[in-house]
Amino acid sequence: MSIPSPGSDDAISAGELSARYDKFVVDLLGGIAYGELSAFEHLSSDARHSPTLQDRAVLGKMAVAEFGHFEMVCARLSAMGMDPELAMLPFQLIVDAFHARTRPADWHESLMKAYVVDAITEDFYARIAEHLDADTRAVIAQARTGEEQSALLVGLLQKMLAEDPRLSSRLALWGRRLVGEALTQVQRIGAKHSFLVGLRPDGTQEEAAAEVHAILTALTRGHSKRMSQLGLTA
Amino acid sequence: MSIPSPGSDDAISAGELSARYDKFVVDLLGGIAYGELSAFEHLSSDARHSPTLQDRAVLGKMAVAEFGHFEMVCARLSAMGMDPELAMLPFQLIVDAFHARTRPADWHESLMKAYVVDAITEDFYARIAEHLDADTRAVIAQARTGEEQSALLVGLLQKMLAEDPRLSSRLALWGRRLVGEALTQVQRIGAKHSFLVGLRPDGTQEEAAAEVHAILTALTRGHSKRMSQLGLTA
Repeated sequence: MSIPSPGSDDAISAGELSARYDKFVVDLLGGIAYGELSAFEHLSSDARHSPTLQDRAVLGKMAVAEFGHFEMVCARLSAMGMDPELAMLPFQLIVDAFHARTRPADWHESLMKAYVVDAITEDFYARIAEHLDADTRAVIAQARTGEEQSALLVGLLQKMLAEDPRLSSRLALWGRRLVGEALTQVQRIGAKHSFLVGLRPDGTQEEAAAEVHAILTALTRGHSKRMSQLGLTA
Repeated sequence: MSIPSPGSDDAISAGELSARYDKFVVDLLGGIAYGELSAFEHLSSDARHSPTLQDRAVLGKMAVAEFGHFEMVCARLSAMGMDPELAMLPFQLIVDAFHARTRPADWHESLMKAYVVDAITEDFYARIAEHLDADTRAVIAQARTGEEQSALLVGLLQKMLAEDPRLSSRLALWGRRLVGEALTQVQRIGAKHSFLVGLRPDGTQEEAAAEVHAILTALTRGHSKRMSQLGLTA
């Protein structure tokens, strides 16, 4: 029989709240750092599918930007006195599994993955950043992909779909798979780490669950909007 | 029966010499650009073998630098009024075949490949640059890997060999395979393209062949010296 600790739910000390918040930020930055490092590695490998050498450089450029974000987030973790490696480790299996399950079969799928996953990741960061201190928010803002890069991807995807309309149904399906895997990953990370629970450090489990639900809904909505812009069914 | 063109060997016009030189420079830059782009893609994928996330970032950083070189050489080709894509195309099969034949089996081999291939490539550029105009020489100099990066690789390799002396014979063998493949590639490129022949635009075929031989000897000597520094038999 377990003895309930006194006031465990309704009287959390300020010190414990602060520790929980710090743990949350380290988890978040660790997750972002590992996500950026893997994105770098996968984008640069996926680039090899490109039909032309010029296209190959498009994903390469994006990969290089992700590596810059990785270095920047690691620097922030180090400045906080944390070991970036330790902060990243808990996310390695989940992120690797995501990439293993979403291996693009060709250039079209590589481009689509770069666009869909990047956008949904950014939406996720932006949503979470609302709850954070100004310094952490600034780091996360810097880790966002530039507008120019996103516009370039959209342009390439639109051109590709216009040139070969038969691609639409395949890429719509691929988009659904990608978003499904991405949201599953968000849920798994949330369940396994202090990550999403930390969003409302003074809130109850129910409030945290509601917040997670709200995030997933917002991410899905953003994704659907982007697919419509490409003329695809989300 | 072919009619010999008048003075074909001993009276090449200044215009033809200049055209031959330009073709040589475009070939050279195209080869360097494609080499850097592939190095970027391979280093970033090979990085996944790394034992720690920190080590993984070492090759990643090197890959990012190679991508910068690729962009810089492409910019130079564009400034010369050349299409970088067209300039790179002739080197795609040879370089891809090189990487296919030298796929590292683990982190040790990845690190060794990064070091050996990068150094020999730089020696090759440096040797060829002697024959070139100042502008082209400057571009090639900028495409060289920094001292800091090379020193980092040597440090990691030395640490690795000190920790596990059994690695020595395997890595010595791997080094020999890498240098063999690299020199074969240099020869194939030389035979197939105007590349090495252009080294002495006013020279005879015999002089060009002697120059190629001298380059291969110098590259082998540089490689042996680097292996000795690691305590390995070249």
